[in-house]
Amino acid sequence: MSHRDGMTKTSSGFFVSQEAPIRTDDPVQTPTSPAPDILRCAYMDLVVTDLAASRQFYVDILGLHVTEEDDDVIYLRSTEEFIHHNLVLRKGPVAAVAAFSYRVRTPEDLDRAVAFYSEIGCRVERRPEGFTKGIGDSVRVEDPLGFPYEFFHQSEHVERLSWRYDLQIPGELVRLDHFNQVTPDVPRAVRHYQDLGFRVTEDIQDEDGTVYAAWMRRKPTVHDTAATGGDGPRMHHVAFATHEKHNILAICDKLGALRRSDAIERGPGRHGVSNAFYLYLRDPDGHRVEIYTQDYYTGDPDNPVITWDVHDNQRRDFWGNPVVPSWYTEASLVLDLDGNPQPVRTREHRSEMAVTIGADGFSYTREGDDEAMPSWKQGEYKLGNQL
Amino acid sequence: MSHRDGMTKTSSGFFVSQEAPIRTDDPVQTPTSPAPDILRCAYMDLVVTDLAASRQFYVDILGLHVTEEDDDVIYLRSTEEFIHHNLVLRKGPVAAVAAFSYRVRTPEDLDRAVAFYSEIGCRVERRPEGFTKGIGDSVRVEDPLGFPYEFFHQSEHVERLSWRYDLQIPGELVRLDHFNQVTPDVPRAVRHYQDLGFRVTEDIQDEDGTVYAAWMRRKPTVHDTAATGGDGPRMHHVAFATHEKHNILAICDKLGALRRSDAIERGPGRHGVSNAFYLYLRDPDGHRVEIYTQDYYTGDPDNPVITWDVHDNQRRDFWGNPVVPSWYTEASLVLDLDGNPQPVRTREHRSEMAVTIGADGFSYTREGDDEAMPSWKQGEYKLGNQL
Amino acid sequence: MSHRDGMTKTSSGFFVSQEAPIRTDDPVQTPTSPAPDILRCAYMDLVVTDLAASRQFYVDILGLHVTEEDDDVIYLRSTEEFIHHNLVLRKGPVAAVAAFSYRVRTPEDLDRAVAFYSEIGCRVERRPEGFTKGIGDSVRVEDPLGFPYEFFHQSEHVERLSWRYDLQIPGELVRLDHFNQVTPDVPRAVRHYQDLGFRVTEDIQDEDGTVYAAWMRRKPTVHDTAATGGDGPRMHHVAFATHEKHNILAICDKLGALRRSDAIERGPGRHGVSNAFYLYLRDPDGHRVEIYTQDYYTGDPDNPVITWDVHDNQRRDFWGNPVVPSWYTEASLVLDLDGNPQPVRTREHRSEMAVTIGADGFSYTREGDDEAMPSWKQGEYKLGNQL
Amino acid sequence: MSHRDGMTKTSSGFFVSQEAPIRTDDPVQTPTSPAPDILRCAYMDLVVTDLAASRQFYVDILGLHVTEEDDDVIYLRSTEEFIHHNLVLRKGPVAAVAAFSYRVRTPEDLDRAVAFYSEIGCRVERRPEGFTKGIGDSVRVEDPLGFPYEFFHQSEHVERLSWRYDLQIPGELVRLDHFNQVTPDVPRAVRHYQDLGFRVTEDIQDEDGTVYAAWMRRKPTVHDTAATGGDGPRMHHVAFATHEKHNILAICDKLGALRRSDAIERGPGRHGVSNAFYLYLRDPDGHRVEIYTQDYYTGDPDNPVITWDVHDNQRRDFWGNPVVPSWYTEASLVLDLDGNPQPVRTREHRSEMAVTIGADGFSYTREGDDEAMPSWKQGEYKLGNQL
Repeated sequence: MSHRDGMTKTSSGFFVSQEAPIRTDDPVQTPTSPAPDILRCAYMDLVVTDLAASRQFYVDILGLHVTEEDDDVIYLRSTEEFIHHNLVLRKGPVAAVAAFSYRVRTPEDLDRAVAFYSEIGCRVERRPEGFTKGIGDSVRVEDPLGFPYEFFHQSEHVERLSWRYDLQIPGELVRLDHFNQVTPDVPRAVRHYQDLGFRVTEDIQDEDGTVYAAWMRRKPTVHDTAATGGDGPRMHHVAFATHEKHNILAICDKLGALRRSDAIERGPGRHGVSNAFYLYLRDPDGHRVEIYTQDYYTGDPDNPVITWDVHDNQRRDFWGNPVVPSWYTEASLVLDLDGNPQPVRTREHRSEMAVTIGADGFSYTREGDDEAMPSWKQGEYKLGNQL
Repeated sequence: MSHRDGMTKTSSGFFVSQEAPIRTDDPVQTPTSPAPDILRCAYMDLVVTDLAASRQFYVDILGLHVTEEDDDVIYLRSTEEFIHHNLVLRKGPVAAVAAFSYRVRTPEDLDRAVAFYSEIGCRVERRPEGFTKGIGDSVRVEDPLGFPYEFFHQSEHVERLSWRYDLQIPGELVRLDHFNQVTPDVPRAVRHYQDLGFRVTEDIQDEDGTVYAAWMRRKPTVHDTAATGGDGPRMHHVAFATHEKHNILAICDKLGALRRSDAIERGPGRHGVSNAFYLYLRDPDGHRVEIYTQDYYTGDPDNPVITWDVHDNQRRDFWGNPVVPSWYTEASLVLDLDGNPQPVRTREHRSEMAVTIGADGFSYTREGDDEAMPSWKQGEYKLGNQL
Repeated sequence: MSHRDGMTKTSSGFFVSQEAPIRTDDPVQTPTSPAPDILRCAYMDLVVTDLAASRQFYVDILGLHVTEEDDDVIYLRSTEEFIHHNLVLRKGPVAAVAAFSYRVRTPEDLDRAVAFYSEIGCRVERRPEGFTKGIGDSVRVEDPLGFPYEFFHQSEHVERLSWRYDLQIPGELVRLDHFNQVTPDVPRAVRHYQDLGFRVTEDIQDEDGTVYAAWMRRKPTVHDTAATGGDGPRMHHVAFATHEKHNILAICDKLGALRRSDAIERGPGRHGVSNAFYLYLRDPDGHRVEIYTQDYYTGDPDNPVITWDVHDNQRRDFWGNPVVPSWYTEASLVLDLDGNPQPVRTREHRSEMAVTIGADGFSYTREGDDEAMPSWKQGEYKLGNQL
Repeated sequence: MSHRDGMTKTSSGFFVSQEAPIRTDDPVQTPTSPAPDILRCAYMDLVVTDLAASRQFYVDILGLHVTEEDDDVIYLRSTEEFIHHNLVLRKGPVAAVAAFSYRVRTPEDLDRAVAFYSEIGCRVERRPEGFTKGIGDSVRVEDPLGFPYEFFHQSEHVERLSWRYDLQIPGELVRLDHFNQVTPDVPRAVRHYQDLGFRVTEDIQDEDGTVYAAWMRRKPTVHDTAATGGDGPRMHHVAFATHEKHNILAICDKLGALRRSDAIERGPGRHGVSNAFYLYLRDPDGHRVEIYTQDYYTGDPDNPVITWDVHDNQRRDFWGNPVVPSWYTEASLVLDLDGNPQPVRTREHRSEMAVTIGADGFSYTREGDDEAMPSWKQGEYKLGNQL
């Protein structure tokens, strides 16, 4: 828990402070072994139940580029990528995440990863030949929060397609941007990922210091991953970046043209958190994919940490459009190292959905403004009470 | 009422036919006098209750250009306009529309307007000096549907600001695009406006031929005005065009920055009808303003008329985002020629909101697809039952 | 010849007046027969020498949609079009234009076209079955300026692809916008096309009243065709519109990716004349194609006519980038009704290129500003003297 | 000098290899002291001769935000910045660069900077109170290539304006992106900056291994600075980033509207090197400013280094538009630590301008293609021979 002492309110309505205004009473043990030096989120290993349907979604519609494929697995990458893949679609019986995979700076960082996780009793598996094609020596772990994390350095190089405009579509995805994980106790998760070397860039809190979500980075963008408060461990979404906002609108248009608009869950819109323009889709298995563009540089060590008030209805959509309930409640299972789904534990802290939309919720556009929410917004913000 | 015989289903899911698949059993009398030759919708004369608040909205936020103003009236124009104004903000006791004003081709068309409306018993008032500054000889009428319509030809010319990029903002409004009127009986309204020379470009119907809305044009865009089924006569919205989609997103961003995001009622999104990109705002009096861009050329006499199925949930938002209830139910009063609000008559035909969202509604993304609406859409489409 | 009396200088540096500040001492005879009522430029019938190479350019690169094709002819249309085609590529021995084709309002307008041209001694050919597939009763003429003009009303309807975002590419061409014709005597051409019903929207003149080019419209955009002063009759370019500026940049990017960037002749840039964003390409035969977006509405009868000073270096490129000499000197042959190239007559009036760039030219950014052109612009503006 | 052995040709026409395909026969001594850990290029300290004219250019036109100003100095920042400034405009007698300033990770890195440069005999000056307002302890040096380099860690924090869309203009500059330095011997410069911790991302070479320019980064973009071959030490340009391409076009449009289009030196266009969209302006003193958007992530240690052939005419403009001669020949003086201009030494290696445009130059669009450059490109590429 935390408080707003030491935070400075900005002219945009949120607060800034120095990392990190989050404290936990129930920390994961901090290893004495140094953490591996993570470069960036690199790929997600995703289990899908209908490979053909998933291929249609990710390749034919979203336009990810196929590096390699066979009857059971498809290796995909974004335009700008030069490592083998950013997304693996793997045929399996249960839709789930097999790994959140990070690239580390050196081969030696894999030894560090083994030591780091072994010290705190996590299950660790290392495969010199890698878990996926195109990737070499890799370490997979069941992390203390129950997430399957992977670390690797070596990858086959493939051609960066940034100059191949002849292959690009109106909604071209240029980069893997970040992961997002659902976990019951956000401060506990934040503290652990700080131990792993992540830096907090933004979070959402209430006045009592309840933390609803936090964004954490290695590369100098707003995040490589985020912890979203909820029943977990589950995967909230994986996000790809486009160059411009119209690229994201083009994806919506294409889904409409294909009569697949029901793949759109939320957006497009402008985030308050991250200042990025966004869209959330659901793939044929219900895995959530975000399309994202134009956050900001966070690479300085004293980068100001931003805290949004949970009742500020511009925090998740800067235009005040309410979050749909499914976005809060639905997420993908994650697998243990044997390929079985991790059990999901219930969040016991307050629910962001409950405190903001629906019967018990409260949100404001202008803090302290007594004017009622206008008629056209009331219906939207009371949506939650139907659940 | 109408039927789908003679309509051709397109690969996009809507139907095309020749003008106009709409018939009325209760027509307004067709005048024998020829209709005035209308060029385009030219300006709206809008009564607002707090002129300073309205000036802030239309000038400081939306960036319309002030041609002239005094303590009681502000004359505004869009970037591209060379006539005196596209919007008049007039201080008054009740928020309402004083006139939907159209420009006609010649001075003689005003004589035609007088004869056309007099013949069918409408109240007509002509002022050689005009009803608003900058505009000459004008005719105002209470039209058979209860709307205050104005016709004029002469206007002072002002400088077109299209090349004055130094004055332009990220959300620059370049043109007045159209009006939208709420009226209980859409086929009756369509037939009357066809008599006045309008051509139907698109409409929304159900399989029984109930017409929920129709779009009609003089200039070769999708519309100069539209008839939306509902309690009327009321004004649904006035629409301004931007050049590009990002200009519309910039308006949302600016409203967020100013903590005025509750002015956003619906969108941004892509319309099915018109294929335009859109956003709906509410001004300080609740008058609805649409921002709109990129519909299509309709100027050929055999331009295909498009009919959308009312149950097609991509008709009003091509991305399947549901319409908020207030958008269906709320609208502005219109004034008679004495400045008193016209009484509002209830729509007796079916309600588009009732048949599409909420407890009784039904909508599909893919016609004939038995799959249930996904979980993330169900909540949104059941929104209506709270009203 | 004309003078600047009666013109008003705007804050943007050009002049406005009422139509049309152009007079000719050598007019074509004005027919007493009424002109056909032209709706819009509809398609160009283009002879190409290598059909496969042209198909690659217009279909594979520019993404025009094939309505129909065989070994000798390809019929192409833009996204928004519902008539059969906007461009015909016809295999032939000499690269040239076989027809500038306009759609007229009614079948009877074809009789008017026959009478109009017959009266002034032009060669006329009428084919009830049309000259191209998908088009019915048509009239072709050798007009008084030597151009092959076609008029038709009837066309097969095809599906408008505006909602088919799944078929669209980053550089999607949505509309045929205009033609541009090279002719030695611009005032003579303007007067003739005014007789045919065109209205002047903009022109370029010097202080002595020499007219270098004029833009003329039927539909309410800046032009359906333009007269560019030069050796003629020749075709300067045919122009297609995109929705947004980034679509035009995407065409450049694709040409770069395909190592076909030498197809770019001039631009991209912002026109002074028309205020549109533009790009000029050259097809495999050297036919010039413009890509164009965002001019302004011109449909009012008193639409202000804009006159640009020929020495204003922002007139053709509002950013002051000089015109490349080939753009002034190169153009396509046009055919007579037997399919033979029309002889080209030399322009005897002043040359825009000579008076603006090169050894004898003079251009200014700020009129009356004594400061020399900066070093980085001098080289560019002296380019012409190498020819 | 280098060779193409070990390079792999890509499908886009350039080569990739591992860092760095550049070798020097005349290296600067490599210090044994460790280099300071540079985060990123942070600000340029720029001497201007007319402060009011410069303020108009950078504030009124380009929209940089004033953090602080007095009669002699103006401190400016981009939208996203939270340190005190990205650009200092300082009134002085000779237009020049007083410092290229980099932010380092820790206060201790300033000790490292002192040791690093002292060891190799460079003049070093440290000021605990900083050289500019808002910045603390700073080290300035005359680096071995003659450039005034600054290093600092401490800065006052100011509000990041990313969410303040109400303050933003169509051409909003969001980030300082990079510097560019002119130096006679590029391999020597590269080697020295590698010693300082920079990584090469791209370069331009000929088949003999002559290096014409190289791009080097600390933050994971294509560069924080670049070495451009030419008479030096001089400053080639300072670059700011926008979010989207239309923002850059808006700057051109605004310059046109203000009749300041002669500030545009080159572009807009797409770079081959960096894949970014660009524009080059010249400020009132002739200092060159680039506006830049959308390069790619380079943060992995094995990021492929790209080598462009100097004769590839898509290397500097991917659309094949030739570079104007002034862009090669003109640049700004740099100052020594006493504020006197550094003497300029002539480049003795081959000149990129001479080998590519003008009388002696040679460029190709498709390597090995025998077809002559088309007529419309010849004039442009022969431009250089007038100098």
